[in-house]
This record gives sequence, structure tokens and C-alpha cells, in this order.
Amino acid sequence: MNKNIKVLGYGGNMYVVAVYDISTITSEGQKRLTKIMKLFRQYLHHTQKSVFEGELSEAKFFALKKAANRLINHETDYVVFYKIANKNNIERETVGIDFDPTDNLI
Amino acid sequence: MNKNIKVLGYGGNMYVVAVYDISTITSEGQKRLTKIMKLFRQYLHHTQKSVFEGELSEAKFFALKKAANRLINHETDYVVFYKIANKNNIERETVGIDFDPTDNLI
Repeated sequence: MNKNIKVLGYGGNMYVVAVYDISTITSEGQKRLTKIMKLFRQYLHHTQKSVFEGELSEAKFFALKKAANRLINHETDYVVFYKIANKNNIERETVGIDFDPTDNLI
Repeated sequence: MNKNIKVLGYGGNMYVVAVYDISTITSEGQKRLTKIMKLFRQYLHHTQKSVFEGELSEAKFFALKKAANRLINHETDYVVFYKIANKNNIERETVGIDFDPTDNLI
């Protein structure tokens, strides 16, 4: 499993799954979560409460990662990105509640 | 993006990323989270607070999914599984806190 950046030869778009966990103990954390959710919704589909997916070019991926890196609190929050070279190489299965992105999560 | 079960011809092991969100508003939810975390740790590596990864045979994947399906509250919780045919087709990048699985999360 490649932990660090090692380009898989994406050439075209890659498929990205992003999962975040933002500490919302403080009101500042709540504001951070709102900003981070808005940021991710600009780039990816909101498929579960803290899960986003979609196709991105490498440039767009780096822009999203850079913006997320600036917004999170590096002591309490994380964002993990999974990059898959070809969207046909990944399947998704869900058990439990199906997510409605129009729900107001905050 | 294949939403439902469509075997990608796994033959050997597949690489699985699992993300869960368990409602812990009630004490019963806290107990559920503990059970679910223990379940997932039997099958996969605990890489971030609510993220698990690793290689599984199809039989092991179905056993894990079945057990998770029984444990969660279908009104409040979810588990989403991503199945990738070949672990070399996926890269992970993290920003923020690096997770220590020995931390007691509950």
C-alpha cells in the first residue's frame, strides 16, 4: 500500500475518495467543519456524512489538498485521501443509513 | 461508479477500505461503537479513527459485512465499504493528525 505520494501515472482524471474527521468540541471546530464541508462539496460528491467521492485531475486534487491542509486543525483533525487510477477499479457497498446530501448536517 | 454488488473478478484477495459513522448520542450507541470497532479490528487495519483498511478474501468480506449489518443501528449508523481489485491501484495521502491505533478512542 503506497502511503506517500507516488504518482500512479494518472495522466487523465483519477477517482478520489476523501474521508475527514473534524473535532467539533469547540464552536471554532463547528465553523471549521462548515468551511471544510463547503470546500469538499466544490470538488467532490458528498456521499456519506464524512465521505466525499469523485473524479479529479491531479491539479484539482492538489488544490483541494492544499486548501484542506490550510483549513484543518493539525492537532485534532484529519483528512485521508484515497486515489484510484481508474474508477472502474473500485466498488462501493453501504450498510445502514443512506445519506442525503441536502440534509443540513451542522 | 458501481454502487451495487458487481464482482470485479476478484479471484484472489481484494483491497478493502471501510468507513463507519456510529451514533454515540446514547450509551447504547457507545457500546455499539466498541463492538463494531472490535469487529473491524479482527479483519482490517485501523488506519484512522473511523477508517479501516486491508486485504480480504471475498468470503471474509461477506462475513465482515454480515456481522456489521447485524451490529449497527440502521436508523442512525452507516458503514461504507470500498472494494479495489488490486492494492497497487490505490494510494493514500493524509493531512492532519496521524492516527495511533493503540489510543483508546472510546
